[in-house]
Amino acid sequence: MSGVSKRIVLGVQYDGTPWQGWQTQLNGLTVQDRLEFALHKFTLQDVSTVCAGRTDAGVHGLEQVVHFDTTLERDMSSWVRGVNTFLPPSIAVRWATEVPHRPDEQDNFHARFSARSRMYQYVLYNNPVRSPLLEGKAGWVFRKLDVARMQLAAQHLLGEHDFSTFRSVQCQAKSPVKSMYSIKIEQRGDLIMFTLHANAFLHHMVRNIVGSLIYVGNGSQPPEWLKEILDGRDRKFAAPTFMPDGLYLAKIDYDPKWQLPQLEVQNFFWS
Amino acid sequence: MSGVSKRIVLGVQYDGTPWQGWQTQLNGLTVQDRLEFALHKFTLQDVSTVCAGRTDAGVHGLEQVVHFDTTLERDMSSWVRGVNTFLPPSIAVRWATEVPHRPDEQDNFHARFSARSRMYQYVLYNNPVRSPLLEGKAGWVFRKLDVARMQLAAQHLLGEHDFSTFRSVQCQAKSPVKSMYSIKIEQRGDLIMFTLHANAFLHHMVRNIVGSLIYVGNGSQPPEWLKEILDGRDRKFAAPTFMPDGLYLAKIDYDPKWQLPQLEVQNFFWS
Repeated sequence: MSGVSKRIVLGVQYDGTPWQGWQTQLNGLTVQDRLEFALHKFTLQDVSTVCAGRTDAGVHGLEQVVHFDTTLERDMSSWVRGVNTFLPPSIAVRWATEVPHRPDEQDNFHARFSARSRMYQYVLYNNPVRSPLLEGKAGWVFRKLDVARMQLAAQHLLGEHDFSTFRSVQCQAKSPVKSMYSIKIEQRGDLIMFTLHANAFLHHMVRNIVGSLIYVGNGSQPPEWLKEILDGRDRKFAAPTFMPDGLYLAKIDYDPKWQLPQLEVQNFFWS
Repeated sequence: MSGVSKRIVLGVQYDGTPWQGWQTQLNGLTVQDRLEFALHKFTLQDVSTVCAGRTDAGVHGLEQVVHFDTTLERDMSSWVRGVNTFLPPSIAVRWATEVPHRPDEQDNFHARFSARSRMYQYVLYNNPVRSPLLEGKAGWVFRKLDVARMQLAAQHLLGEHDFSTFRSVQCQAKSPVKSMYSIKIEQRGDLIMFTLHANAFLHHMVRNIVGSLIYVGNGSQPPEWLKEILDGRDRKFAAPTFMPDGLYLAKIDYDPKWQLPQLEVQNFFWS
């Protein structure tokens, strides 16, 4: 029955390199603008999307989660293949599903507010010479890093803290207090993978943490320095914001009751 | 002592996506042109390079091997860092070394003629939906492939054969007879990796073989079809040339006496 509003949820993957971040801008050069343009071409209606976590320029999305409301009747496979027809190679809808939606009720699915936690990954290439095949997809540090030292340092960030030290001045979050559930730092050959899991992240938080951990990994600071700067609660104490190239919004966690067809986290550098 | 000619060998890595292949062209949009431009900027001399294996437009090099002659005295680390200063993000010199060079003797190192064998890799993404993060770096097949069937089919290509069936009409090789030492086909999740090792390859040979193996993997042809078309010795029997995106010139094998500082094969999708 057309005319009845439905809420559609999409899993969206993108290479952030060519885009000025997620959030819509007047110039239209963002992932959200390009996705809404494709949705418009497919539906011939204006579609406004809400995402789980905005990403900055150059940051990638393995599985961004997005919702929008529509009165149109389409198969879920049409929402995937039809919309992809209008998307460039750097963006793709990976899955689509419909969630129950009662405009008069409180407990509706919302891509951002229903998210229970987020996982980000940072891929780092640690080699004296840069690798053209990782360009835009991994950060690069040429000085040898000590992974064990970084793992020690990261322990100081676990739990609930005021993360103001790692928060950009543009951050719009209401509170700087977040809960860091885990930070995993793994190494395979010249690649180092940081996996951070928290209830939510502040603006630039992952890149500021990774940049600061690198200061410990390269011997400039001791592992305890992370506790010191965290306690300082001021952005001026942390390392400079590290390059966006290796940052991936990897996974958004929701209550299973929503039955989203989310995929396993698949970072191709770590298959 | 300046004025004495030396032979320098470079290990070069490149993302082939932005380039019209390896070999120099009048328009200058090739990896060789861009490397020779960087060598010119670094040496202020004209430098002509010889490579181990020319790659086509869109094909990547994990470790292309290149030699050139020069009378200049430079540290090997300068040949790496100095030349990289003049190269774009999609190309990098990974190592440099000097080989003995006596212009009056036969047994000099030559990037192409001293190569004993070559290894290519093809990375394939086998999923109903394309992945933006593999764009340009992996081939894509949306129909489910049977890896065991492809492995069976590949056995027919092992050994010395006339590979005319998999040879492009532009191929300039003197003979279509090559020795295929091994074809490995591995799967991890949605990624399939083909690793082909032969004394030499004809033009388009890997892409034509991978395209034909896909016909077997998707059930269009039986594994024995590979033997049938190989025996036909005519390009018209094989599948269309498969996309360049997932193709990597992975390794060139030389006699250890040359002491090249070659790196371990590192395809980042398979670390």
